[in-house]
Amino acid sequence: MNERQRAQRPGGRSARVGAQVHQAVTDLISERGYGNFTVGEVAARAGVADSSVYRRWGNLESLLTDVALTRLNARSPMPDTGSLDGDLRTYAAQVAREITGPDGLAVVRLAVALSGDGPQGLKAGDDLFAERMRQLQAVLDRARERGEHTPDGLDALAVLDHVLAPMYIRVLFGLVPLAPDYIDGLVDRLL
Amino acid sequence: MNERQRAQRPGGRSARVGAQVHQAVTDLISERGYGNFTVGEVAARAGVADSSVYRRWGNLESLLTDVALTRLNARSPMPDTGSLDGDLRTYAAQVAREITGPDGLAVVRLAVALSGDGPQGLKAGDDLFAERMRQLQAVLDRARERGEHTPDGLDALAVLDHVLAPMYIRVLFGLVPLAPDYIDGLVDRLL
Repeated sequence: MNERQRAQRPGGRSARVGAQVHQAVTDLISERGYGNFTVGEVAARAGVADSSVYRRWGNLESLLTDVALTRLNARSPMPDTGSLDGDLRTYAAQVAREITGPDGLAVVRLAVALSGDGPQGLKAGDDLFAERMRQLQAVLDRARERGEHTPDGLDALAVLDHVLAPMYIRVLFGLVPLAPDYIDGLVDRLL
Repeated sequence: MNERQRAQRPGGRSARVGAQVHQAVTDLISERGYGNFTVGEVAARAGVADSSVYRRWGNLESLLTDVALTRLNARSPMPDTGSLDGDLRTYAAQVAREITGPDGLAVVRLAVALSGDGPQGLKAGDDLFAERMRQLQAVLDRARERGEHTPDGLDALAVLDHVLAPMYIRVLFGLVPLAPDYIDGLVDRLL
């Protein structure tokens, strides 16, 4: 069992510390913005020892990546509704709910910040991005395996460009809420 | 003549100071990320007195907004090619060149950072965003006035969603360069 799996195991002291530390990170990003706090401040806010944070995550960058990955993945699992249209609508609505929720802007900004912040940030952004793209591609592949008609050239990057990117940018620019009709419209246009 | 106009007047000591301060801001964002430097550090890097920066811009937030607005607007003026297709292709290529250039990521990240950073940041982001949307809407209106056929519901926000947002997100996630075929494809899909 590696560190990340242990952190996600439900129940127990390890899981409780993990949840407290994640919440502390999200709060600090909301309050101060990315890059304006230290591991020590995260630990203090979470009510745990600095050494607990360093032992589990190694450094601040790895911790931030873990938070962003957990939020963007665990809370928005890929739906399996039986049709591509249904999968994409459900997925888009999940993402919209996540990124317009209480900590949504903080999570999107964290993902953006990690995506281009030097070698470690880039690596973290790559992991985040690759995981999301793999999940999306699996949804598209499943639809093709079922024999559903899908537009030519429709791949995970097209979903990023025309469903996720508009929602991310609207959240970043404060053009919220994202209405259900708007979200369905993005999927309709794609398909 | 207000402060911003004076700063943009070509030639003279004021313009030289303005250019030096803008470059210092862009450099510091590239090196340290948004929020990790002070007015004093900008002034030192630009080789000017702190008081010169405070006198002209008032505070760091206003200075950052001025830099982002100048970069995103002055360097990407709206084209007028005689057709909507031509205008949008030229505009998209200009934006792509700007945001994939040497300081491009820094400018996009600055715009993102300003767009949701407390009351002043929000205000700055609103200005930035409103100016861009006004320019785009003018291009669309001009096409309709010429009697060009344009898709139903095509407005400045649709250009944001399906041309600008994909390019911004690809730059933020490091999916560069943006190939000319890719950029043209975004415009084709929109029209």
